[in-house]
Amino acid sequence: MAMTIRILVTGGTFDKEYNELTGELFFKNTHLPDLLKLGRCELDLKIETLMMVDSLYMADSDREIILESCIKADEDEIVITHGTDTIVETAKYLAKSIKNKTVVLTGAMIPFKFGSSDGLFNLGCALAFTQVLHPGIYIAMNGKYFTWDNARKNRKTGKFEEIDFLA
Amino acid sequence: MAMTIRILVTGGTFDKEYNELTGELFFKNTHLPDLLKLGRCELDLKIETLMMVDSLYMADSDREIILESCIKADEDEIVITHGTDTIVETAKYLAKSIKNKTVVLTGAMIPFKFGSSDGLFNLGCALAFTQVLHPGIYIAMNGKYFTWDNARKNRKTGKFEEIDFLA
Amino acid sequence: MAMTIRILVTGGTFDKEYNELTGELFFKNTHLPDLLKLGRCELDLKIETLMMVDSLYMADSDREIILESCIKADEDEIVITHGTDTIVETAKYLAKSIKNKTVVLTGAMIPFKFGSSDGLFNLGCALAFTQVLHPGIYIAMNGKYFTWDNARKNRKTGKFEEIDFLA
Amino acid sequence: MAMTIRILVTGGTFDKEYNELTGELFFKNTHLPDLLKLGRCELDLKIETLMMVDSLYMADSDREIILESCIKADEDEIVITHGTDTIVETAKYLAKSIKNKTVVLTGAMIPFKFGSSDGLFNLGCALAFTQVLHPGIYIAMNGKYFTWDNARKNRKTGKFEEIDFLA
Repeated sequence: MAMTIRILVTGGTFDKEYNELTGELFFKNTHLPDLLKLGRCELDLKIETLMMVDSLYMADSDREIILESCIKADEDEIVITHGTDTIVETAKYLAKSIKNKTVVLTGAMIPFKFGSSDGLFNLGCALAFTQVLHPGIYIAMNGKYFTWDNARKNRKTGKFEEIDFLA
Repeated sequence: MAMTIRILVTGGTFDKEYNELTGELFFKNTHLPDLLKLGRCELDLKIETLMMVDSLYMADSDREIILESCIKADEDEIVITHGTDTIVETAKYLAKSIKNKTVVLTGAMIPFKFGSSDGLFNLGCALAFTQVLHPGIYIAMNGKYFTWDNARKNRKTGKFEEIDFLA
Repeated sequence: MAMTIRILVTGGTFDKEYNELTGELFFKNTHLPDLLKLGRCELDLKIETLMMVDSLYMADSDREIILESCIKADEDEIVITHGTDTIVETAKYLAKSIKNKTVVLTGAMIPFKFGSSDGLFNLGCALAFTQVLHPGIYIAMNGKYFTWDNARKNRKTGKFEEIDFLA
Repeated sequence: MAMTIRILVTGGTFDKEYNELTGELFFKNTHLPDLLKLGRCELDLKIETLMMVDSLYMADSDREIILESCIKADEDEIVITHGTDTIVETAKYLAKSIKNKTVVLTGAMIPFKFGSSDGLFNLGCALAFTQVLHPGIYIAMNGKYFTWDNARKNRKTGKFEEIDFLA
């Protein structure tokens, strides 16, 4: 348990804020340190902000940056905060090349700054899963973990579900 | 992942509320369902309130009730919400008799109702750990998990730490 | 102090919510009752929702509805919740026809549902001002009250200021 | 409206915090600046902390300090944050000597730090009332104002009411 976990920040609903002058949502800095402080988290963590984007606008060039960061990281346990809309695509992208690290992607349905965020819960889940799961690429949402090849976001409910479950 | 997890509620800071007429802290109902809703948790859960006590006043008769509930539960994965002051004692009590279930005890330093609770984070961690750890008795706090025989609460910092670490 | 105060709800940032499926802001129901409950408000109030619109899209037909509602109200003290972008226009519109009632318009820069809303503070101010100011049309923002003919929103700061002050 | 308002802080539920190591409530610093920032308050204010006490333990020597501070203040408008249990006693104490200033005492039933505080609402009311009411000593609670000689806290409901109302 003396492991170090790397957290890669890519944006997503997690970190969106409300601009009170324009009434629009925008990105400034990540709130990960605030969330970790709230959670009294004492894990040995390295937090790195790769980008701050809405995952609907995430390009393959962004995914390449994420992949490179996972590969070059000294740590074997990695958590990635990511918009939920294309989190599955990124998980698939990483799975093609990463075999020997435990990478858990997670997101949020409500911005942390809006008070009733699911982000704190999801972050707890993701950090826990990454410590114990075997190497592989996973998505942690709704209290569950999903393997990269067996997850999808249900657009109607906003919940994640196994693809198997639907077959 | 179609497992059912049992959550046993025993009180603790997690569920304390502020009585605005007397200015004192007290217990009413558990806030676990509120926390799970905030976290958009979709796990199959059975929540059972065993007692609502400050763990400083928890007696062995209470621990016996918790033990019996763990044993008679149909589920093999169990999360227990518990006051942090004697959470280690309860973990030890359970470890004497439970060998084939994954039991994760967790607590909170700040009541959920006081806004900035660590409870939501800890609950996420505990639910995640119970899904993936091998059978045994664990404590989930500060983003980490501790085995029942290697944990203590540092009274000065309020953080949990391994006993080994001190040796 | 046995007066009854009428609250007219017209929408505005006050009541905006976050749609977690689309990531967009929208209106559902007013949160005024929640705010009043938080404030332990014991005033005799009549709350009436006239419309739920972003004040940037408020038309003169909407302002006519607000005016009619003020005129036909039995109460002499009226608070109107309103988007801040055109709150001054509506105040001017009302001032042309209402002479014998104390009407206080107020708004918010942050939606109440986003946690750190100024709405609760502004609502307290507006309800207090309407009880003690002489008949007239006022805007309550930033802890201050402004007469309808001497207020403007500074678009750069988001704060309200007197026009005189600038002369 | 270019007036300056003095805020005298005396403690009370308003400013209580939760000590997560002992589970007890205590005073540290006032949260008035945080509340005013949340409220986007732009009034010209002077904030002065006189003491940090639970009003149940407020002695006449404390009330003498409050009285002296009101008298020696340059401002004619004063807001005092105070525990609700003896707020009426302090109002009476001040009324004996202060005739030419508008002093509004206010408090809270829930600590600001516990999230769902009525304090932000009450502070808005108190600041508004002090700007408009004639000189005198008032209590602002539950959205209403009470004159010093016609108020009492109902211990069963936690609400303030006029004494006349009961006669």
